[in-house]
Amino acid sequence: MKEIAGGVCAAKGFRAAGIHVGVKTHNVQKKDVALIVSDVMCAAAGVFTTNVVKAAPVLVSRAHLADGKAKAIVCNSGNANACAPQGEENAERMCDAAAKAIGCASGDVLVASTGVIGQTLKVDVIEDGVPKLYALLEASEAASDAAAHAIMTTDTVKKEVAVETTVGGKTVRMGGIAKGSGMIHPNMGTMLCFLTTDCAISPEMIHAALLETAQVSFNRISVDGDTSTNDTCIVLANGMAGNAEITEKNEDYAAFLEALKVLCTKLARMMAKDGEGAKHLITCTVQGAASEKSAETIAKSVISSTLTKAAIFGCDANWGRVLCAMGYSGESFDPDKVDVHFASGAGDIAVCEQGRGLPFDEELAKKILSEDEVEINIQMGEGDGACTCWGCDITYDYIKINGDYRT
Amino acid sequence: MKEIAGGVCAAKGFRAAGIHVGVKTHNVQKKDVALIVSDVMCAAAGVFTTNVVKAAPVLVSRAHLADGKAKAIVCNSGNANACAPQGEENAERMCDAAAKAIGCASGDVLVASTGVIGQTLKVDVIEDGVPKLYALLEASEAASDAAAHAIMTTDTVKKEVAVETTVGGKTVRMGGIAKGSGMIHPNMGTMLCFLTTDCAISPEMIHAALLETAQVSFNRISVDGDTSTNDTCIVLANGMAGNAEITEKNEDYAAFLEALKVLCTKLARMMAKDGEGAKHLITCTVQGAASEKSAETIAKSVISSTLTKAAIFGCDANWGRVLCAMGYSGESFDPDKVDVHFASGAGDIAVCEQGRGLPFDEELAKKILSEDEVEINIQMGEGDGACTCWGCDITYDYIKINGDYRT
Repeated sequence: MKEIAGGVCAAKGFRAAGIHVGVKTHNVQKKDVALIVSDVMCAAAGVFTTNVVKAAPVLVSRAHLADGKAKAIVCNSGNANACAPQGEENAERMCDAAAKAIGCASGDVLVASTGVIGQTLKVDVIEDGVPKLYALLEASEAASDAAAHAIMTTDTVKKEVAVETTVGGKTVRMGGIAKGSGMIHPNMGTMLCFLTTDCAISPEMIHAALLETAQVSFNRISVDGDTSTNDTCIVLANGMAGNAEITEKNEDYAAFLEALKVLCTKLARMMAKDGEGAKHLITCTVQGAASEKSAETIAKSVISSTLTKAAIFGCDANWGRVLCAMGYSGESFDPDKVDVHFASGAGDIAVCEQGRGLPFDEELAKKILSEDEVEINIQMGEGDGACTCWGCDITYDYIKINGDYRT
Repeated sequence: MKEIAGGVCAAKGFRAAGIHVGVKTHNVQKKDVALIVSDVMCAAAGVFTTNVVKAAPVLVSRAHLADGKAKAIVCNSGNANACAPQGEENAERMCDAAAKAIGCASGDVLVASTGVIGQTLKVDVIEDGVPKLYALLEASEAASDAAAHAIMTTDTVKKEVAVETTVGGKTVRMGGIAKGSGMIHPNMGTMLCFLTTDCAISPEMIHAALLETAQVSFNRISVDGDTSTNDTCIVLANGMAGNAEITEKNEDYAAFLEALKVLCTKLARMMAKDGEGAKHLITCTVQGAASEKSAETIAKSVISSTLTKAAIFGCDANWGRVLCAMGYSGESFDPDKVDVHFASGAGDIAVCEQGRGLPFDEELAKKILSEDEVEINIQMGEGDGACTCWGCDITYDYIKINGDYRT
């Protein structure tokens, strides 16, 4: 497996485009609609927000995925089309417009939105823009780049990755673009991720692979604990790599799954690192837990702890907050067996052993935590469960971004 | 029932004191040890942190409460005695010192600590200070004030309330002091609350009343979602009001419970309002929920939402974040039945009706949310369940207080 260029256009038979049509009204330089189209019909799967309050495009995409097939994705930024008048009607109109341009059924188009909540989507400008988008479709690095930018809100960097692997003796490529938390007018940090692959795989198997992958990648990051109404991750597999179609959990499935996990973990880390206002990527690894599930719950509790996030912002080796967050995670364990280390490119330091504080070099600790990417490594002494989760620190900029008045 | 002065010294037969002994080393002006003593043995009950990682004084106080009786409380600020070497030994030594001065059994003394985690408690200076504290004990407003200050860390205002009511034809008084989230060297925001009453009530009934009260007061506030290792709420009832002892859930119990709830709700609100760096007290009331429990879960999710807290900091009527937080609370409901209002002394404004945004006067909304105390009022249309929870906004100062380096 190797990393390659091209994002969502890396796999055979996928074209993309991204332009400004006018959903974002304050800045005409910012792209706001993306289109991704496969030359042929794809096996498709999606995972969506677990929030009871679901945005209209989530409901529409879920319905369009009922047959496990799709050919295209249309997405706008600047308006979440959540809790908004005519929400489903407008989401369907986006699909209709894309279907008309492409020449496919509306039910074969998936739709996503991100941005301000509760305001009517200006679907007219999107409908007007879709033919232009279609005309611009290209299978190129630049096209994937344009699409990646068109789904951004306050993200500061685009999130785009592609990998190449071998499945059933054939070269298979897969790529993705994603957005993390960010907004134009402060609202919720929506996670969107669109993945494309030329692997031949059945709808059932692509769905299984996506579920399994999301669980160990996107479901293991947290920026601020607020689960958006719009979170969406979609994968399209068009089969153009020419491998024998994967229809069961065999060796080929394992190879595909491994590549998908690498792809999604990279995108997930990018999202955590580019969390609103974040200065540090925090990687928390729990080992020696009673089970993988227990390790995951504990690691998530640590990366979600506001006090731990504030400590990392202050480059403060405040391991007491780590133990505290472990303690209220809901998992039971013996605190007197817990060891904690902080680590980064600048070194590794033990701060807590068997649940008690160790004397440590505060200067070295501060140096370690001053790096962009820092690790909190926990050894629990309970069993063999292990898990890594990713988060970010909470900063003045987070408060600024989310406290500024909408209008 | 009426509010009276005197705090923990308002009820008959209780004396208190608070002095600086040297646990807080950076500022000799700041009191750091408090002692509260009843003239006679009390029925006593406590509720403690649910964190798996429990501070030593929590373990010791819980053990000392096994017989439902106690006579005194000793508490230090400046060091949490959590995850610290010789933790239980040092907590017991605090009880021993107080017992020796008072002339009671060590098992009749309760102990609490708040402050930095993971460092050895300087128990020597506390032991040296206890005789001085004992000599200063007084049944006065000034004495309760001194004790209230001695348990503060970064609290900006002391939390002290007392009320008077009638139980079984006798005047019964009860009072309390509390501390909210704050710290000397940034650590966790510990909640401590010490309540005294002269009501005659059995250990079983005082325990039941405390559990029921904590559930609707302290358990309905959130500052930052981090449950401390040290949270402690203790009540001492010495029976000196002369009412017939309450030994069952009769009319007298109801009168006592009502007063205890008023007392604790006032203290809880004070804690939320004085949350670290907070500029706004947020009161979220959910009505029309499927049940009281459901209303509580939803209201807690709203006041705990970092994005909602940031919006209130920005005086931004960003109701989408409120709906979003309701949606990920874990409760199921129909978003299309939800109405949301923002209110304060400056007015009341409807922002969402039946799950859809309403056009509203942004200037008025901003004025309403600029008040110190703001309300988020939610009507769900599901049933008769209602609940009110209290929280605070998240501000630059929260990040500053918790991000600053410990040393």
